[in-house]
Amino acid sequence: MNRPQSVERMIEIIKKLPGVGPKMAERLSYHILKMPQPEVDRLTDSIQKARQIMKYCSVCYNFSEQDPCQICSDAARERSTICVVETPQDLIAVSKVKDYQGLYFVLGGALSPLDAVGPDDIRINELIKRLKNANISEVIIATDTDSKGEMTAVYVAEIIKTLGIKVTRLGYGLPVGGDIEYADEVTISRAIAGRQEM
Amino acid sequence: MNRPQSVERMIEIIKKLPGVGPKMAERLSYHILKMPQPEVDRLTDSIQKARQIMKYCSVCYNFSEQDPCQICSDAARERSTICVVETPQDLIAVSKVKDYQGLYFVLGGALSPLDAVGPDDIRINELIKRLKNANISEVIIATDTDSKGEMTAVYVAEIIKTLGIKVTRLGYGLPVGGDIEYADEVTISRAIAGRQEM
Repeated sequence: MNRPQSVERMIEIIKKLPGVGPKMAERLSYHILKMPQPEVDRLTDSIQKARQIMKYCSVCYNFSEQDPCQICSDAARERSTICVVETPQDLIAVSKVKDYQGLYFVLGGALSPLDAVGPDDIRINELIKRLKNANISEVIIATDTDSKGEMTAVYVAEIIKTLGIKVTRLGYGLPVGGDIEYADEVTISRAIAGRQEM
Repeated sequence: MNRPQSVERMIEIIKKLPGVGPKMAERLSYHILKMPQPEVDRLTDSIQKARQIMKYCSVCYNFSEQDPCQICSDAARERSTICVVETPQDLIAVSKVKDYQGLYFVLGGALSPLDAVGPDDIRINELIKRLKNANISEVIIATDTDSKGEMTAVYVAEIIKTLGIKVTRLGYGLPVGGDIEYADEVTISRAIAGRQEM
């Protein structure tokens, strides 16, 4: 017997989500079929609502329900330092460290020649534009410490130096080959304290 | 910075799905935020549609878009043998084996005293009712080979024997401690051929 068509379709679509294999998609789908209708509604509503409410902050490109976002519109923040991260998840991780009180910029990814991700595919031009229009004294680069993140850091640093702005890179304490998003607060805190000029 | 509330809510709800931990829920959620709206619609629509169309077959309790299901209403099937499985996924796995042409019954789980799942929580009464009302000569029990599945098999077999119906259990070829759903077709085929009376 084949699976009913509507189940097959649900599995096909869920399978495409990142980190979800065919077996996992099947398991999730059959679980959803057994869920009471109100729970299914809560699931799909929460997805639709988040997707529809969420926009990019036009200053830092973080996901936000308002524009500019909470951080960019916070007058108490130290406005001459920008921390550059790859993703909104990385921003959340860094923002948990209380000793950093500056602003942020989300690149939206990292350079990756093998995946055909070049400088125009992430927000390098938007970053340069922002740096030119604001009074920034230091950019802290907090991209991942894998090869893509390192490459991106070097590339971005070279450009920023031509603007006469000090560039530093989170260094101390970060495990090599790791993903910033999963680093603990103490490690990130040490990395900020031990940042090095590039 | 905390995550926006709508993202937090989406993560909380996705986290409750089976096999999805906090990090996975976060990853899926941020992926969904970046998906184009039509793709998000396809995701939520496929979930809602499958959930709404799908019902239980009133004969075998498999998920089906029609009642009775495709298998139960197939006149070409051998109607005196019933294969008892735990879940609709198990039924799909067994049905891929061409040498079994009988009918099915989905228990909807396995006995598990530690999880407070007793005989009234799975469809044992419905199975007995069906066996009394139909002319069945053999019941093949194809529950999982873990302890819950074994316990369920023994429990169900004892009851069926009192009805004077032959009970067999898939035996040969199934790896112990495994999950029928993930067994390959050859293994299931051998297990059917080598089934043993209980």
